[in-house]
Amino acid sequence: MKIGYLGPEASFTHHAVKGAFSDEEHVPYTTIPDCLEGLITAQIDRAVVPLENALEGSVPITVDYLYHDADVHITAELVSPIQQHLMVHPENESRWEDVGRILSHSHAIAQCHKYLYYRFRGRALETSTSTAAAAKYVSEHPEENSAAIGNSLAAHTYGLKIVEHNIHDYHFNHTRFVVLSRNPILDELRLESEAEKTTLMVTLPSDDRPGNLHQVLSAFSWRQLNLSKIESRPLKTGLGNYFFIIDVEQSFEGVLIKGAIDELEALGCTVKVLGSYKKYSIVQK
Amino acid sequence: MKIGYLGPEASFTHHAVKGAFSDEEHVPYTTIPDCLEGLITAQIDRAVVPLENALEGSVPITVDYLYHDADVHITAELVSPIQQHLMVHPENESRWEDVGRILSHSHAIAQCHKYLYYRFRGRALETSTSTAAAAKYVSEHPEENSAAIGNSLAAHTYGLKIVEHNIHDYHFNHTRFVVLSRNPILDELRLESEAEKTTLMVTLPSDDRPGNLHQVLSAFSWRQLNLSKIESRPLKTGLGNYFFIIDVEQSFEGVLIKGAIDELEALGCTVKVLGSYKKYSIVQK
Repeated sequence: MKIGYLGPEASFTHHAVKGAFSDEEHVPYTTIPDCLEGLITAQIDRAVVPLENALEGSVPITVDYLYHDADVHITAELVSPIQQHLMVHPENESRWEDVGRILSHSHAIAQCHKYLYYRFRGRALETSTSTAAAAKYVSEHPEENSAAIGNSLAAHTYGLKIVEHNIHDYHFNHTRFVVLSRNPILDELRLESEAEKTTLMVTLPSDDRPGNLHQVLSAFSWRQLNLSKIESRPLKTGLGNYFFIIDVEQSFEGVLIKGAIDELEALGCTVKVLGSYKKYSIVQK
Repeated sequence: MKIGYLGPEASFTHHAVKGAFSDEEHVPYTTIPDCLEGLITAQIDRAVVPLENALEGSVPITVDYLYHDADVHITAELVSPIQQHLMVHPENESRWEDVGRILSHSHAIAQCHKYLYYRFRGRALETSTSTAAAAKYVSEHPEENSAAIGNSLAAHTYGLKIVEHNIHDYHFNHTRFVVLSRNPILDELRLESEAEKTTLMVTLPSDDRPGNLHQVLSAFSWRQLNLSKIESRPLKTGLGNYFFIIDVEQSFEGVLIKGAIDELEALGCTVKVLGSYKKYSIVQK
């Protein structure tokens, strides 16, 4: 099976792909739309892209593309802890505290803001297009004594030495990746999994009444269906028109969730089922 | 007044700052936390950062920092249309269709995915750390006949010629920026504005019952208070714990919204008022 992912090699998405699909072929793409187009045109069998709280990708781009363009289905969710490490060229291991400048993706620098402030205040921080690109640069310039911030895969890929582990500010921070396929199937992976869940995209009736959303949630609430996520997104048909992404903590096979969807459609809502799937945890090495 | 913003110069945030605070001093910052720390430590009087659907910044970073770290207040919202243009060095204006490669921020490349696919299929796409950095590179390498994707401010700043206007795929796409201050005040700007709104951060009671969120929304719904945005975010105290960002289309001075907040607190919710402010539209030139 060919697994496309948001690259470059050694990105956080690549790390999740290696954890979930270790025996398959991995194909990097430059952007999220490129990766989804690769799936739609059958260059690959699965696309893995970040959905929430990601480093390299933007959540809105994934969500909007799924809503507006792509007729694809979520087959699994991969949840990976964000672990940022400080790494240098092996030649500079003994003098890493005198590092001249520190390179990484702007989001990674932001996630290690407090560490950098208290440990390396005043040191030059330079942004790169990805954490992997920062690691590559450091590996190619041992004479500079610069450091990169990134994941353990980037250190391994580019032969760098991790000198401080887990320098990110928040230790319960995770990135959610979705595995996408052209067909609505359920991927069973050899990883620890939690209960199934179902992701819906709901567009409210066009009359923008206060309480419309409240009525939508009633359909879930009285059935005791728990929602683990709800998010409004602009419809791009003008300001003030929204659709909602709702995660229900139940498989689509349950009779209750089908009843809720029927009720929403009777209320004038449009409901798109993005997938019914399992959530898997990726362990960082 | 000193206005800090997410840089670099000629970024989309800078464009919004120029539109809203044309007569003030502008100070670029490398990351969103840096900009917010600059505000807290009184290096600047206002911080302007992207909140939603941004190019250079990540929404989660802004929202999480406001929730977890920064005791700051929203004083205004700036809404700017995303308009991406294709620009080349003036020396290459006549041969722009033969451009060798196209540079921009990965999100900008993603936003122009269809244009690039139909117009420049197979041409090399290269990511840069920002749209402004792409424009700067193109301005310094006329011999390459490369093009950048970015905003009109970047073209102006780096002396490039726009050869195709509005090449982005979705024409109703906007970026929301927030103006932040250390004190809860209301910024009155000389721009077209819509009605006031109030942004709340609500943490649900710790018992994770189905229907908790529904009960929260009831407090707004029976008062006919319209919500223009709702989004759940992980609390970072473990998976499955969420807080909600809710935009209410009314000033905090209204008696109804205060009643709703009192009711939420009586239900065991924690409510933080991030600001009561006006939304202003930035017009791109």
